[in-house]
Amino acid sequence: MSHLSDLLDNEPAVATAGADMLADSIEQQGSTVSRADWRPPVPGTESALARLAADGRMGEANRTAIARMLAVRPHLVDIGVARDVFPGMTDRTFLHAGPPIEWDRASGPMQGAIIGAMLYEGLADDPDDAAAKAARGEVELSPCHHHKAVGPMAGVTSPSMPVAIIKDGAGDGVAYSTLNEGLGKVLRYGAFGPEVIERLHWMDRVLGPVLGAVLRNRGPVDLQSLIAQALQMGDDGHNRNRAVTSLFLREIGAALVDGADAPVDQRREVYEFINNNDHFMLNLVMAAGKLGSDAAAGVEASSVVTVMARNGTDFGVRLSGTGDRWFTAPAPPVDGLYLGGFTDEDASPDIGDSTITETIGIGGFAMAAAPAIVGFVGGTAAGAVRRTLAMYEITVAEHPAYQIPMLEFRGTPTGIDAARIVRTGVTPMINTGIAGKVPGIGMVGAGLVEAPMACFTAAINALAETV
Amino acid sequence: MSHLSDLLDNEPAVATAGADMLADSIEQQGSTVSRADWRPPVPGTESALARLAADGRMGEANRTAIARMLAVRPHLVDIGVARDVFPGMTDRTFLHAGPPIEWDRASGPMQGAIIGAMLYEGLADDPDDAAAKAARGEVELSPCHHHKAVGPMAGVTSPSMPVAIIKDGAGDGVAYSTLNEGLGKVLRYGAFGPEVIERLHWMDRVLGPVLGAVLRNRGPVDLQSLIAQALQMGDDGHNRNRAVTSLFLREIGAALVDGADAPVDQRREVYEFINNNDHFMLNLVMAAGKLGSDAAAGVEASSVVTVMARNGTDFGVRLSGTGDRWFTAPAPPVDGLYLGGFTDEDASPDIGDSTITETIGIGGFAMAAAPAIVGFVGGTAAGAVRRTLAMYEITVAEHPAYQIPMLEFRGTPTGIDAARIVRTGVTPMINTGIAGKVPGIGMVGAGLVEAPMACFTAAINALAETV
Repeated sequence: MSHLSDLLDNEPAVATAGADMLADSIEQQGSTVSRADWRPPVPGTESALARLAADGRMGEANRTAIARMLAVRPHLVDIGVARDVFPGMTDRTFLHAGPPIEWDRASGPMQGAIIGAMLYEGLADDPDDAAAKAARGEVELSPCHHHKAVGPMAGVTSPSMPVAIIKDGAGDGVAYSTLNEGLGKVLRYGAFGPEVIERLHWMDRVLGPVLGAVLRNRGPVDLQSLIAQALQMGDDGHNRNRAVTSLFLREIGAALVDGADAPVDQRREVYEFINNNDHFMLNLVMAAGKLGSDAAAGVEASSVVTVMARNGTDFGVRLSGTGDRWFTAPAPPVDGLYLGGFTDEDASPDIGDSTITETIGIGGFAMAAAPAIVGFVGGTAAGAVRRTLAMYEITVAEHPAYQIPMLEFRGTPTGIDAARIVRTGVTPMINTGIAGKVPGIGMVGAGLVEAPMACFTAAINALAETV
Repeated sequence: MSHLSDLLDNEPAVATAGADMLADSIEQQGSTVSRADWRPPVPGTESALARLAADGRMGEANRTAIARMLAVRPHLVDIGVARDVFPGMTDRTFLHAGPPIEWDRASGPMQGAIIGAMLYEGLADDPDDAAAKAARGEVELSPCHHHKAVGPMAGVTSPSMPVAIIKDGAGDGVAYSTLNEGLGKVLRYGAFGPEVIERLHWMDRVLGPVLGAVLRNRGPVDLQSLIAQALQMGDDGHNRNRAVTSLFLREIGAALVDGADAPVDQRREVYEFINNNDHFMLNLVMAAGKLGSDAAAGVEASSVVTVMARNGTDFGVRLSGTGDRWFTAPAPPVDGLYLGGFTDEDASPDIGDSTITETIGIGGFAMAAAPAIVGFVGGTAAGAVRRTLAMYEITVAEHPAYQIPMLEFRGTPTGIDAARIVRTGVTPMINTGIAGKVPGIGMVGAGLVEAPMACFTAAINALAETV
């Protein structure tokens, strides 16, 4: 009976979970309440979560998946050409960002980038001709993610484009990406004017070959080391890549000074192209991410997210334990800052494979390392820290190499767990560029967006069916 | 009488200032206390502060001084040679850091650097010979600060050394510094071994001429723009200069690729030398600071600090309103992290002109922008933020160009006011390298230190005598 008398004699200490009403009411009565962060799971996932819990393998499976993700050592080794790099690529195969899509359902920027790539490849005479041919199915669309590749925004990768080759210094994985064109009127944002096509030709004629020669001349560039350093220099790895681009240029600059078998005017052009584009490293950081997320794929019963990607129409995710299946929902609008006279009326929904950065623990998940990014994507520095802190709720690890100085060098929240997302209701925070919704416009802004819950509820239900 | 009855009827709200005893006692009695940050002025400054207040010009004078400091636009325009740059410099004139000092009272690293510079200039056969000649007065020592110049650590600048020339893009000021040698066994930390002398010869033979040619080829480099960007990339401008060095190399890299009238092997050596030294920009940031602080000098009745500098024996300051007078106190020990097997037993007291960075609102004053610096100088990221916040108490402005993203882009605390220092008891926070106390050792660590109060009390008393 001593327990009961304790209850009566002492002030009650109440722990609450779930809806706030009980806690609020008790606090109003003057008692101390400890609120646990628990909320009921998202409706429609209770039985899936129960089944996964009964199965009992998910925790260990997630530890296996994250260990594989963290074990890769992405090294940039060479620059190839898409048609040589991707097995089975024909002259009419175009890779693209996000889950599978056909022309009819494709977003404006996706259609614009396809038109631009057709003009660049000489497959059409003008934009109308390109659109008509694409509508007749004369090009074959296939997601980058189906080819160990990633592409920012529209992500369109056509056969003549130079492609970065990233290999695993600690294993035998490989990943690919195109090279970054810069901001504004560029193919990946759906622009296809003459300056876009001319730049793409310069990239395959000069940038790719010279960079490839430099890499073969000096040896691979350790991307994980550069990214880790850049997070201590105010980058997030997604929309702020100024430090990592600086460090990359430092790495290859000496080889550009003294030769690498390329003419001096081309070496100077390459130096200035990279120097004038603080987003140059985005594509390479993304490919480094793809290497890690592919390594984490295919672990039975694992709820770790291995892909988040958008094509401007659909937002799609994949889990480690559900293999190649995509779980999609409509791509959401982005809350952002707009360039020049553009407004949210001009914006396409969320687009691009660049969410691979968040998938491996940087980007929106590392915004506490990059307070200056709020000048580009909006919000406050304090909000950037809160976003990072919230992501620890839905991740299974803290990255050992990617650290946030302002959080006393805490590792970034890494390895998104779809089960934690549906249990907590917290969805992944993403920062991103915004493309104009009309084909040909290009970039209109940058901002913040959350991954749609529906992808994760569908994925968790599918995972539960596998156990 | 209603006021009195209010006092009796309501709970008292007490505001306290000064010693904590009263506030502590009232709080123990259950009342609410608002503690103002006021403390009594440092003993021995009350009458000086009263005299300055009665004079009434100090506030306006400080606004004039800080406006002049903030108006300069430091541009790196060329690299010269010390003997050509400094009027009246003879073959035996050696500039040095801090207030005036003679050989007998010079610290170990200062003596080591003088020995090294004599060997480098061919003025002595070996270290013992150099020390004996220096002791006989065969070299003439003169503070850098007396020559519009600054030098990190020992700051020894001998006639053959290359010297950076910084001009004011918005006026006619000019400032100078040597070029940075790197860390470890280097002259400025008091080392004088063969590798030190050899590097100095390479610097005057290759680094200075090639950099000068690059600058004449491409035009001036806007240092304020680079520093402002670097503060958004985790630099503080004193002991973390990785971002600004990266940005500088980006600026000049294209000119190193395509010529600048220098042989390709020398251009590659220069590229790699800068790329291998994340502190390369320290000296140039310091000279940019000197341009600003010199502009603020000479305003009658102004208590703005225009110089803080140490020679390893004395810490000296100058105020705008007291002209060329130095106010000195013993250089304090530094609280820091040590390299290899070194301990605080091996450390020289605080040394160098690099406190010019704190004097113009960066360095220790901008540590909130550079949380990763705590890995180099010690402490925590939270402590770095607290240090910056404390400095707003003793400064007269927030820098319009140098902003701290994590503080929602608040300008750095700029323009140290000696009157506020003696009123509040808060002294300037500095981060710094630590030299070995034995001549020849070189760098032993890096850490944190506060400027000694005695300099500021003496300075304020002297300022009061001028009004």
